[in-house]
Amino acid sequence: MADHEVKALVFDVFGTVVDWRTSVGREVDELAAARGWSVDGAAFADRWRALYQPSMRPVRRGEAPYRRLDDLHRESLKTVLDEFEIPMDDPDEIEHLNRVWHRLTPWPDSIPGLERLKRKFILATMSNGNVSLMVNMAKHAGLPWDMILGSEPAQNYKPKSVVYLTGADWLGLEPGEIIMTAAHNHDLEAARRLGFRTAFILRPTEYGPNQDKDTAAESDWDYIVDSMEELADRLGA
Amino acid sequence: MADHEVKALVFDVFGTVVDWRTSVGREVDELAAARGWSVDGAAFADRWRALYQPSMRPVRRGEAPYRRLDDLHRESLKTVLDEFEIPMDDPDEIEHLNRVWHRLTPWPDSIPGLERLKRKFILATMSNGNVSLMVNMAKHAGLPWDMILGSEPAQNYKPKSVVYLTGADWLGLEPGEIIMTAAHNHDLEAARRLGFRTAFILRPTEYGPNQDKDTAAESDWDYIVDSMEELADRLGA
Repeated sequence: MADHEVKALVFDVFGTVVDWRTSVGREVDELAAARGWSVDGAAFADRWRALYQPSMRPVRRGEAPYRRLDDLHRESLKTVLDEFEIPMDDPDEIEHLNRVWHRLTPWPDSIPGLERLKRKFILATMSNGNVSLMVNMAKHAGLPWDMILGSEPAQNYKPKSVVYLTGADWLGLEPGEIIMTAAHNHDLEAARRLGFRTAFILRPTEYGPNQDKDTAAESDWDYIVDSMEELADRLGA
Repeated sequence: MADHEVKALVFDVFGTVVDWRTSVGREVDELAAARGWSVDGAAFADRWRALYQPSMRPVRRGEAPYRRLDDLHRESLKTVLDEFEIPMDDPDEIEHLNRVWHRLTPWPDSIPGLERLKRKFILATMSNGNVSLMVNMAKHAGLPWDMILGSEPAQNYKPKSVVYLTGADWLGLEPGEIIMTAAHNHDLEAARRLGFRTAFILRPTEYGPNQDKDTAAESDWDYIVDSMEELADRLGA
């Protein structure tokens, strides 16, 4: 595997590039303090995120047409607001909170590493987030993507093959010319099966202090690193 | 029309952002000098470009499935090579020349203007070029797009409405929140009919010294400017 053949890196985003738990938890804590609600922001974030995978399943199974993640997030949010007995009914307020996913904060190494990688490679998202979510997040956080790929172009959700393959096709590249980068072993497994190269970034606190999954690389991924900057080191960028 | 409601600018690219005629002509002239061919690069570029609109027509009319512009360009190139009696048969050489459209040079004001606009607005392509063409051009020339929109996401070609509307939908915006920017009156006409705002940039030498179309704004577009920097001035960016 010669590094000089790599033309592009594509990235999982939630957890891999940005710290969703801290970002969502912080906004919910601030909202709770302002309104006098008794709610733990991190617990709220965990519960909202727990509904993420189930919400995509009907689309992956072909039982429902593709709907963008913003819409799935909104339905899950209403469920969590009910469960936490939070009295939020104003559609504009719900919409603003739902778009907290457009305002997530990157891990400290993400932007320095991506800026270096961008000088040598094409960088694109390969996320289940919809295009506007990814574009707004990039504008908000300064993420230097060359292109937004992932669920919306393919009208389906990872780990369905069509998502990864549509991305490669649109870049005009073979999967073997692309490194799929993620903090999640199952995402890399799906990409490797299609011929993509793989990079695992350890994010041991994505799910908080008691994280019990993706705490280590579970396969011999092509690159196994602790940060985006280490990945840039390894790729000579 | 309040400027503060504008969230994004989308751009025609060939002719509006980059100078295709000079770029293609120069590469063909260099190739001709190296091989001892007698061919005028600008004439070659003009003829290749003349086949551009006809090549998209079957897709627009629904008589042929969508094929990306790289493929249409390649067919047209073979026709022009025959017409100019240029002996180029090596598929790799033809492929390299076909990808001259990935290596086009921006007009001098494009990057300074876009860099300013990017600080205030989402910037996306709205071109008939395919995604890899646009991504490679951006990497080559340093064009600071936030997103590539246009023909490939919509699987059709401008001025079909679906191309503009898919772009707005993916950005999560109403057409009225987006300025379509082009050096071509017909492109703006199609966008305005759908509710987009419009900006006309005069590019009086796109087609060479004897240009006879798009030499002036032919309607009361929202903005009529001589350069991308003037557009940034007008939008307070």
